[in-house]
Amino acid sequence: MKFSPLFWPIKLKGRTLYILDETKLPHKLVYIKAKTYLAAVKAIREMKTRAFGQVLLVFYTFLLVLKQNKGRKNITAALEKAAACLNASRPTLPFKFLTDMILGWAREGKPEKKIQDFLLLLKAKRIQRAEEVSKIIKDKDVVLTHCNVSGELPLIAEFCRRQGKHIEFYATETRPYLQGSRLTAWELKRAGFPVTLMTDGMVASIMSQGKISKVIVGADQLARNGDIANKIGTYSIAIAAKHFKIPFYVLCPPASNAKTGKDIPIEIRPDKELLEYEGMRLAPYGAKGYYPAFDITLNNLITKHFILDIRR
Amino acid sequence: MKFSPLFWPIKLKGRTLYILDETKLPHKLVYIKAKTYLAAVKAIREMKTRAFGQVLLVFYTFLLVLKQNKGRKNITAALEKAAACLNASRPTLPFKFLTDMILGWAREGKPEKKIQDFLLLLKAKRIQRAEEVSKIIKDKDVVLTHCNVSGELPLIAEFCRRQGKHIEFYATETRPYLQGSRLTAWELKRAGFPVTLMTDGMVASIMSQGKISKVIVGADQLARNGDIANKIGTYSIAIAAKHFKIPFYVLCPPASNAKTGKDIPIEIRPDKELLEYEGMRLAPYGAKGYYPAFDITLNNLITKHFILDIRR
Repeated sequence: MKFSPLFWPIKLKGRTLYILDETKLPHKLVYIKAKTYLAAVKAIREMKTRAFGQVLLVFYTFLLVLKQNKGRKNITAALEKAAACLNASRPTLPFKFLTDMILGWAREGKPEKKIQDFLLLLKAKRIQRAEEVSKIIKDKDVVLTHCNVSGELPLIAEFCRRQGKHIEFYATETRPYLQGSRLTAWELKRAGFPVTLMTDGMVASIMSQGKISKVIVGADQLARNGDIANKIGTYSIAIAAKHFKIPFYVLCPPASNAKTGKDIPIEIRPDKELLEYEGMRLAPYGAKGYYPAFDITLNNLITKHFILDIRR
Repeated sequence: MKFSPLFWPIKLKGRTLYILDETKLPHKLVYIKAKTYLAAVKAIREMKTRAFGQVLLVFYTFLLVLKQNKGRKNITAALEKAAACLNASRPTLPFKFLTDMILGWAREGKPEKKIQDFLLLLKAKRIQRAEEVSKIIKDKDVVLTHCNVSGELPLIAEFCRRQGKHIEFYATETRPYLQGSRLTAWELKRAGFPVTLMTDGMVASIMSQGKISKVIVGADQLARNGDIANKIGTYSIAIAAKHFKIPFYVLCPPASNAKTGKDIPIEIRPDKELLEYEGMRLAPYGAKGYYPAFDITLNNLITKHFILDIRR
């Protein structure tokens, strides 16, 4: 089984973290080296890594801090400092939920082993989920997706191929950060699956033409009532899918402590990221922009949640 | 009354057409000089002018051809050649509907006078419509718009200001051509009205927050059953507006010969315009894109049509 580089975008070799720089894709496949937890947090803040990459980076950052502090007395303080810094990096992914879990393991003892076991489990469960999702795909299905599902779509498509089913994708470009163009189209094309790019505004048009049979997106957070937070634009797509009676599937992490979507804080990013592109000004100088990085899609618009089952 | 340069973006001085180059906005306010009907058609094809600019350019191009052929015998042939070329420029705006009307005037006699009278009527009726629309705006309304309504929004806002009503705008950036950023935000800011830019995908998110009280968009063509063709992305917004029970208003030209939206041909533009921006590659090389320039919004999603009443 071949994996997209986005499926497992973080590595730890010795005392160096290797973080896939998603901002350089699709033109360059390069990794940022980070030797401290502060450098890891910087990569998150600058969106060098995102979505599942952030989740992985939390675990690998703890492995790094554990290595750096091996044999020292103040190891708990070092872990707590890293946790606090990770928690404050970006608001919408439930970092605290993850770091609390790892701090719990540190209190129980053998945190390295527990993290490593957990990462193995995570990988196995993601592969298992991709296979599970592939089973609901029918031959000749055309799947619309938004943003990037961190390497799971090429894997789902690979399972479909093995099952003799032809699958095709439409990807929204996903403004302003263009994850759809830069990551999703890149990883699907690279793995040999047909993908067509479109702007975020073309969703209703293409659905009305009967071209789309399913929607599959990821989620950065799942609330306990089934609402999800995902990349801005997801909610509009879910509403259009309901309008055209197209099933809307979400690949989710396990539920966080949020009761409903209302309890999930939405990150507001600098409007410069919307008004400029790679230093090129798109809008008139002095114009104001609004850039919530995520939106909340309500439970009643979701046909089925595929929740990563990581209970051990 | 001050007008946005986009309200009347075409001029004819002597034997030269001046076409506002909308691709240079918001950075430069410049006009392309066109001395032949072929140069005018080129400006349309390259989207140097668009929407109402194209409509105006049809009339001014005929005025130019009439000037150039004054006193000649073959004037009808010259007009028909220009008409055929305009009709073939872009498919979604009903060029033939307009050129047939003008060719009819030419057969009746005194076409210059008829065109000039018609342009005066058109200007008066657009101002009248802006005032009519301003009357449905309530104090503190927040209006979401898409693409660019060719200078009518600042005019509506100006009427509101005179009526002592505060109005605010949210504009989608309108990918891929960014008319929302480059034209709408520019003309509204220039006229002193508050406007916030967002990506096309943020529509549902912002509507769900209760920030939007009305949607106002334009239309490139109105079918006889009330369906409209407008810039790609309009349909998604209309569906979201219905979902959130927000009134959706359309500023339309008079109905064309199309019975329903299905009779309106949708222009498919080169996917390069989506995969690149100002020569910068956004997507992986070799990726495929799909770029329908317009979509059809069905009648049942439209709260009210404000149709330009140009019957004389």
